[in-house]
Amino acid sequence: MTQVYYNSWLKKYKQPFGAMIEGDRVSFSINVSTKDVEYVQLIIHKENGLKGKETYQMQPNNEGDYQFSYTLDQGKGLYYYYFIIQPKWDKTIFYGAEKESHGGEGVNYYEEHFVKPYQLTCFEQADPAPEWYREAVFYQIFPDRFFNGNEDEHVNQPKKNTFIYGRHDDEPMYIKNAKGEVIRWDFQGGNLLGIMKKIPYLKDLGINAVYLNPIFEANSNHRYDTGDYLAIDGILGDEIEFKELVERLHENGMRLVLDGVFNHVGRNSRYFNENGQYGKAIGASQNKNSPYYHWFTFTEYPKEYKAWWGVKDLPEVNKENQTFQTFIYGEKNSVLTKWNELGVDGWRLDVADELPDFFIQGIRHNLNQYSEKVLIGEVWEDASNKIAYNHRREYILGNGLHGVMNYPFKEDIIALLQRGKSPEEVAENMTVLKENYPKDILFNNLNNLGTHDTERILTIFNEDKGKTITAFALMTMLPGVPCLYYGDEAGLTGEKDPENRKYYPWGKEDLLLLKGFKEWIQIRRTSEVLQKGEFVPFYTKDLFGVLRFFEKEIAVYIVNPTLETKIVQKADFCFTCDISEERKKQFLSLDYGEISAGSGGVFFLQ
Amino acid sequence: MTQVYYNSWLKKYKQPFGAMIEGDRVSFSINVSTKDVEYVQLIIHKENGLKGKETYQMQPNNEGDYQFSYTLDQGKGLYYYYFIIQPKWDKTIFYGAEKESHGGEGVNYYEEHFVKPYQLTCFEQADPAPEWYREAVFYQIFPDRFFNGNEDEHVNQPKKNTFIYGRHDDEPMYIKNAKGEVIRWDFQGGNLLGIMKKIPYLKDLGINAVYLNPIFEANSNHRYDTGDYLAIDGILGDEIEFKELVERLHENGMRLVLDGVFNHVGRNSRYFNENGQYGKAIGASQNKNSPYYHWFTFTEYPKEYKAWWGVKDLPEVNKENQTFQTFIYGEKNSVLTKWNELGVDGWRLDVADELPDFFIQGIRHNLNQYSEKVLIGEVWEDASNKIAYNHRREYILGNGLHGVMNYPFKEDIIALLQRGKSPEEVAENMTVLKENYPKDILFNNLNNLGTHDTERILTIFNEDKGKTITAFALMTMLPGVPCLYYGDEAGLTGEKDPENRKYYPWGKEDLLLLKGFKEWIQIRRTSEVLQKGEFVPFYTKDLFGVLRFFEKEIAVYIVNPTLETKIVQKADFCFTCDISEERKKQFLSLDYGEISAGSGGVFFLQ
Repeated sequence: MTQVYYNSWLKKYKQPFGAMIEGDRVSFSINVSTKDVEYVQLIIHKENGLKGKETYQMQPNNEGDYQFSYTLDQGKGLYYYYFIIQPKWDKTIFYGAEKESHGGEGVNYYEEHFVKPYQLTCFEQADPAPEWYREAVFYQIFPDRFFNGNEDEHVNQPKKNTFIYGRHDDEPMYIKNAKGEVIRWDFQGGNLLGIMKKIPYLKDLGINAVYLNPIFEANSNHRYDTGDYLAIDGILGDEIEFKELVERLHENGMRLVLDGVFNHVGRNSRYFNENGQYGKAIGASQNKNSPYYHWFTFTEYPKEYKAWWGVKDLPEVNKENQTFQTFIYGEKNSVLTKWNELGVDGWRLDVADELPDFFIQGIRHNLNQYSEKVLIGEVWEDASNKIAYNHRREYILGNGLHGVMNYPFKEDIIALLQRGKSPEEVAENMTVLKENYPKDILFNNLNNLGTHDTERILTIFNEDKGKTITAFALMTMLPGVPCLYYGDEAGLTGEKDPENRKYYPWGKEDLLLLKGFKEWIQIRRTSEVLQKGEFVPFYTKDLFGVLRFFEKEIAVYIVNPTLETKIVQKADFCFTCDISEERKKQFLSLDYGEISAGSGGVFFLQ
Repeated sequence: MTQVYYNSWLKKYKQPFGAMIEGDRVSFSINVSTKDVEYVQLIIHKENGLKGKETYQMQPNNEGDYQFSYTLDQGKGLYYYYFIIQPKWDKTIFYGAEKESHGGEGVNYYEEHFVKPYQLTCFEQADPAPEWYREAVFYQIFPDRFFNGNEDEHVNQPKKNTFIYGRHDDEPMYIKNAKGEVIRWDFQGGNLLGIMKKIPYLKDLGINAVYLNPIFEANSNHRYDTGDYLAIDGILGDEIEFKELVERLHENGMRLVLDGVFNHVGRNSRYFNENGQYGKAIGASQNKNSPYYHWFTFTEYPKEYKAWWGVKDLPEVNKENQTFQTFIYGEKNSVLTKWNELGVDGWRLDVADELPDFFIQGIRHNLNQYSEKVLIGEVWEDASNKIAYNHRREYILGNGLHGVMNYPFKEDIIALLQRGKSPEEVAENMTVLKENYPKDILFNNLNNLGTHDTERILTIFNEDKGKTITAFALMTMLPGVPCLYYGDEAGLTGEKDPENRKYYPWGKEDLLLLKGFKEWIQIRRTSEVLQKGEFVPFYTKDLFGVLRFFEKEIAVYIVNPTLETKIVQKADFCFTCDISEERKKQFLSLDYGEISAGSGGVFFLQ
């Protein structure tokens, strides 16, 4: 029977590795075990391309490899391909990926319409994030829950009909009605002054960049229901304090990234103003002559309108509206310009996959007027092929996001340590992203082990501190920028929202965790190879490893997710991608020894 | 046809008026229109008496009045009576009250088993409350909602997993789960220091006695779920502050009455200790060897137990338990002794009608060791004939309560001004209480227009301030001690619990109301006739009036509940009881003039 083999991750079969720039040329080579072949074809189809499905005859060499070089001449986007092998005496083989968009080794199909094609990502240009960003270790703060900086801990300007937690160690909870709607918002009273006062803590921890969940005026404690894009929420402080915070962070070598929530606003915002909180007759909900009326899509004025996932509290804004565009990212007097000029170093775009590409480009255009501003998007899946609202999203193909929040890496780290995925699976999953993402994107991504939207990492691991530290260590070893969710380092626990939003346990930190996190932050901050080095995952039956190399340096981190100590057997190492013989030699020259259960070992060679 | 007439409120028919002391003699006289009578009988039955139903032949005089004098020789309690008239040529007439226990004019019945008897209350002895009490105007404070006396308004020792209102003008609310159980308690943070700091306010208002809702350690904001009877709740302050509060009140001529909640405790109290809040293994719920185990009635240990109205949060205490009795009212080291010795001037007993009579007597016995301590009970209905748990309650017949919270008067005042009851009905209802209550009880009652358990008076009147002031004026004119629920004078609104427990609106008081309340408090405080005077209600078709007289003084208050101004026509006055000719002359000599709609007019003669 005819044997066929192709592996998109190996240079022998595809060159170059991974995503490519438009106009570049890619060489495919597929091995067929018999010479009794009528033809071998490359079938390639640029999504939304002008050429439709293209068929190319591949040319054999002496070793039974059929080759073809293809030029990515239909612009950026996704090129899907597979192969057709027509043996002389056998039935037609269709060779494609095992799972759609999942490269590496493929499989034979015997009917064309079942074939899952390989993905080849084509992007506009290299798009490295600013240097400070690539070298950063981030700290994500949910502002209400970090620290109240007032001497007497009074809460700044509490909002009407809200609750303040009686104690900082209280369990967060939603106060909802029978319909599941939040009827009172709950606050701990953390504020900007509190963050300012904790700069020494962050510095000591080794942090040099802060990502803040929303801080603009809003009704809720999370502030994704923006009330006024141009004002700091009174409970957090004011613009003067904000400026001071930015200055102090910068003085201390720290950068600041804000949360940009531009897909929707609050129903009680200045723009929609359903309950008249912002005065009479100016919000879209109150008067069709409102300057904001055309920002929204009413299906039955004023009660029925398009809202984010049907949540009436969050009326969706029509991003096609030019007034809104100008308001958000216009060059003058826009929301972005205002805060950028006050020194914000970047933005994390909320629900980035629900924003049209042109809108993200408009935002990027605004940021490009400054040097060194970063733009990260909230995407939960493989961002290279995310489809949202029937649109393939192109935000990582140039002129859009620098990177995305890297939830897939988080899932793999957790699954590895929970033994839900084998080391091999994890290595493969990571290689999928390595292939599908433009190289800079992989390094620009903001990695995490948890955010305000997920279960606390310590809780996921059933309060196993060792595993938590191992997971964090592994994250610092991976390409992309590590981001620590406030309090993970101090032992905060909790299921999903709202339990993951407890107040930082000042004075009651878990010192073992704190020490562990601090050490790994230090390692990451001072290691060029971890910030810049090439990334190759590897595995054995039991162990998972990360190899990083840069110039003469090598860093290796090996995780033992099993329940017993393992001796590292170099001979068992499997790689998903090629590495040079020289690197392999270096790599194997290291002395790995034993790694205890649930733990990891780090090894450097300079 | 034979006409029969009897009216328990008129001296011609019954002497003396009203409730009587045991051993005293009462004369009945019933008028029959014809002399063709075979017999007229008095049927009298002392409830739980040894004699059962007694039948007495009544003797006629020349005017057709049949008379009989009866000696109350079966001790205190309720004597029920009616009459049987057997005309010679007509069918038997049974003459009884129109409604059970509702005196005045009666009605004919023609079948004996339908007869509703008249009530004659027989009590042990005159029981005037201490003089200070009779002369007082009370102010009821729900401590969490009055005033936070801390300079920076921080909340003292917030409890674990509780909420503090973001603002003092927030709407109170319960945070409940789907089963309707409160899952987080909500606090404003009012405290003892706050009350202390507001003594000048109270003094200026004219108040000279304060009734505090519970202040002992508990989990809830209302503290009816006592956690520790011997400790001040930490959120309110501590014992030192309590002592200081008592001293300052006394220095300022004010008395203090506490809420005594002895029927049940909190499930998380020191005594029951379900969740171990008070340490391990000492509460009845944790260990059958607990010293408190026998205080409670477990039906299935430890999860099923007798609780107040089935509310599991409030395990009921078995008042038969001698340890509990000694703990609450024993002479030494008891709860009552502790607080009495710190200077408390009296107690309001929560759910007094659910406490056994002997238990209330025990409490009273404790208080009697001191001079001038008052004991008031929570009873919502006519306390002379209240049946609770199948027991007729004898707490107002001597050696028990000095008086009760006078909800019936409140209902009448409101119904009058809302035009739900006619002036005549209101006069009758008030006369019923005047008859049924031992005279001292009527003067010892604590009158109110609302409490922590009822809708705010201003809300009842649809925010009509004029009616609210009229209602308050009328209350100050009635026998019994007026008690003002904090904030009613300042314009607080709200439906029942929790809306009736808003924070006092410091700095945003309704000045019109404040002025009105203050004036009437002043009038009451300085008027002996209002504090001590005999009470006679009267009415016309449209107007309701209160006549009070003492020594040479007369006070009259006339309310016009209609929608238009009324000229007072003295000739239309109807009285429910007798007054002397001399009083009548005085009374009619006053010049009443006009009274505007929804308002009242006050007239004094000295």
